[in-house]
Amino acid sequence: MSTLAGLTAALDWIGLIVFAATGALVASRKQMDVFGFALLATATGIGGGTLRDVLLGQTPVAWVRNPAPLIACVVVAVLVFFTAHVLQSRMRLLLWLDAAGLALFAVTGADLAMSAGAGTVASVVMGVVTATFGGIIRDILGGETPVILSREIYVTAALVAAGVFVGCRLAGLPGSTALIAGFMSGFVLRGAALHWGWSLPRYRERPGR
Amino acid sequence: MSTLAGLTAALDWIGLIVFAATGALVASRKQMDVFGFALLATATGIGGGTLRDVLLGQTPVAWVRNPAPLIACVVVAVLVFFTAHVLQSRMRLLLWLDAAGLALFAVTGADLAMSAGAGTVASVVMGVVTATFGGIIRDILGGETPVILSREIYVTAALVAAGVFVGCRLAGLPGSTALIAGFMSGFVLRGAALHWGWSLPRYRERPGR
Amino acid sequence: MSTLAGLTAALDWIGLIVFAATGALVASRKQMDVFGFALLATATGIGGGTLRDVLLGQTPVAWVRNPAPLIACVVVAVLVFFTAHVLQSRMRLLLWLDAAGLALFAVTGADLAMSAGAGTVASVVMGVVTATFGGIIRDILGGETPVILSREIYVTAALVAAGVFVGCRLAGLPGSTALIAGFMSGFVLRGAALHWGWSLPRYRERPGR
Repeated sequence: MSTLAGLTAALDWIGLIVFAATGALVASRKQMDVFGFALLATATGIGGGTLRDVLLGQTPVAWVRNPAPLIACVVVAVLVFFTAHVLQSRMRLLLWLDAAGLALFAVTGADLAMSAGAGTVASVVMGVVTATFGGIIRDILGGETPVILSREIYVTAALVAAGVFVGCRLAGLPGSTALIAGFMSGFVLRGAALHWGWSLPRYRERPGR
Repeated sequence: MSTLAGLTAALDWIGLIVFAATGALVASRKQMDVFGFALLATATGIGGGTLRDVLLGQTPVAWVRNPAPLIACVVVAVLVFFTAHVLQSRMRLLLWLDAAGLALFAVTGADLAMSAGAGTVASVVMGVVTATFGGIIRDILGGETPVILSREIYVTAALVAAGVFVGCRLAGLPGSTALIAGFMSGFVLRGAALHWGWSLPRYRERPGR
Repeated sequence: MSTLAGLTAALDWIGLIVFAATGALVASRKQMDVFGFALLATATGIGGGTLRDVLLGQTPVAWVRNPAPLIACVVVAVLVFFTAHVLQSRMRLLLWLDAAGLALFAVTGADLAMSAGAGTVASVVMGVVTATFGGIIRDILGGETPVILSREIYVTAALVAAGVFVGCRLAGLPGSTALIAGFMSGFVLRGAALHWGWSLPRYRERPGR
C-alpha cells in the first residue's frame, strides 16, 4: 500500500468511528436499547462508503470480506451506550463529530473515486455523497430533522473539502498535502459555521410567487 | 447509436432537467442556500436512473465516467435559485414538471431495462422505479409530504406510461412510436388527474376493522 | 438445487409474501388506491433481498430475469385491497406478519450471504439488513413511524435469528436445522416481545448531560 493509500485508509477509519459515534448519540437521544445503538452506529459509519462503492461498481462491498469496520461500529455503539450520560451536551458533541466525519469522508471519498477512475466532477460529487449519506440515513432512521437541512453551512463544507482535495491533486500537489488541505478547509468552514452561526444567503420568498 | 437509442437519450435528458428543476423548486420552498439547491436538483435528476443502473448491474453508474448530467443539474439549480421568485405558483409548476419527468423516465427506464435484457414485467417495474425514485428522494431530503402519497393518480400514471411502451414494443411497433405513445399516455393521465383532481377508488375504512 | 437451497428458497418466498402483505396493510391504513397497494407491497416484499444482492454484487438483481416475486407481491396487494376490511385489527396482523417476515429474512439473508462467500460477521449483518430494510422502506414510503424505533425488541430479534443460524452452521449442524432454529429463535423472541411488551433496558437520560 502506498503512503497515500495508507493515509487515506487511516482518515477513512477515523471518519467511520466519528460517524458511528454520531449514530450512537442519535440513538441515545431516542432512548434506544443497545442493539438500536449498534444499528444506528453501523448504518451511519458504513453508509456513505457503502453507497460510494456500490455506485463505483466495487462490489461485493468491502465489509462483506473484511468485517473490521462492522465490529468497530458496534464497539463504538457499546462505549457510547455506557458513557453518553456523562457528557455535558450530547447534541453539541454530535454536531462537532459530524463535522469531522463530514470533512474526512469528503476527502477520502473523492480520493477513492479518483483511484477508481472517476473523472474530476464525479470525484467531487462522490466525496459529497460519501460525506453526507451516512448522516442522512442516521437522521431518517432516528426520526431526526435531517442535518443537511440545517441553516448553517453543511453541504457546502463537504463540497469545499472534496473540491480543495481534487483541486490540489490536479495542481500536482502530493496526495497527503491534498488530503490535509481538503480536510482542514471543510472542517474549519463547518466548524466556523457551527460556532458563529454562519450561513450562505438563502433563497427568499417574495410576494406574488 | 441507433435512432431509437438517440430518441431515448434525448427524452432521458429532458426528464433529467425537469426533475432537477423540481428538486430546486423544493429547495426554494425550504429556503435553502444555492448548494442546497444543487444537492436537491442533482439527487432528484439522477436518482431514478442511478438506482435503475445499480439494479441492472450497470456499474460504475454512467455519471462516474461522464459528468455531463451532474453539471446539467447544477446549472438548473443555479438558474432556479435566481429566477424562482418571478413564478406565479412554484408548487403548481413543480407538479407539472414532475408529471413530465415521471412520464419521460417511465418510458426511458423501461426501454433501457429491455435493452439490458430484462423481461417484460421487470422492464415495466424498472420504468416505474426510474420514474418515481428521484421524486421520493427529493421529498425525503426536503422534508415534504411524498408526492407518491398524493390523492391524485400518480404511480398509476408511471405504470401506464411504462406499460404502454412495453406493450407497443411487444406488438412490434417502432421504438419511437412506443416512446411517444407511452409518454403521452402517462403525461396526459397524470395531467388530467392534476387538472380535474382525478383519483382511483381508494381503500375505505369500514367499521369493525 | 440442494435440499438446503430448496428450503431457503421456500422460506424466502414465505418471507416475501408476508412482507408484501404488511406493505399492503400500511397502504390500507393510508387509504391508498390499488396501485399504491401494489407499490408498497412490492417495495416491502423485495426491498430487503434487493439491497442484499446489490451489496453482495449479485446484479442484475434476481427479479430482473425472473419476475415471479414481482407478480406475487402484486397479487398479494390486490388480495389485501379487497379483503382487509374484514380484519378485526389490521395493525395487530401487520405486526405479527412483520415478525414472521423479520425472522424468515434474517435466516435466509444470512444463508445467502454465506453462500456468496461472506464471512461470519458480515453474514449476520446481511441477515439483519435483509430482515429490516423492507420494513424501513415501507414505513418511510407510507409515512409511518418506523417499526425499528418501536419500544419492543425488534432489531435484536433479527440479530438473534441470524446469529443462531450462523452459529448452528459454524457448529456443523445441518442447514435445515440451522434455518429452523434461527427462525424460531427470532420469531418467538419478537412474538413474546409483542405479546408481553418485552423490551431491553433502554438508554436513560440523566440530569446534567
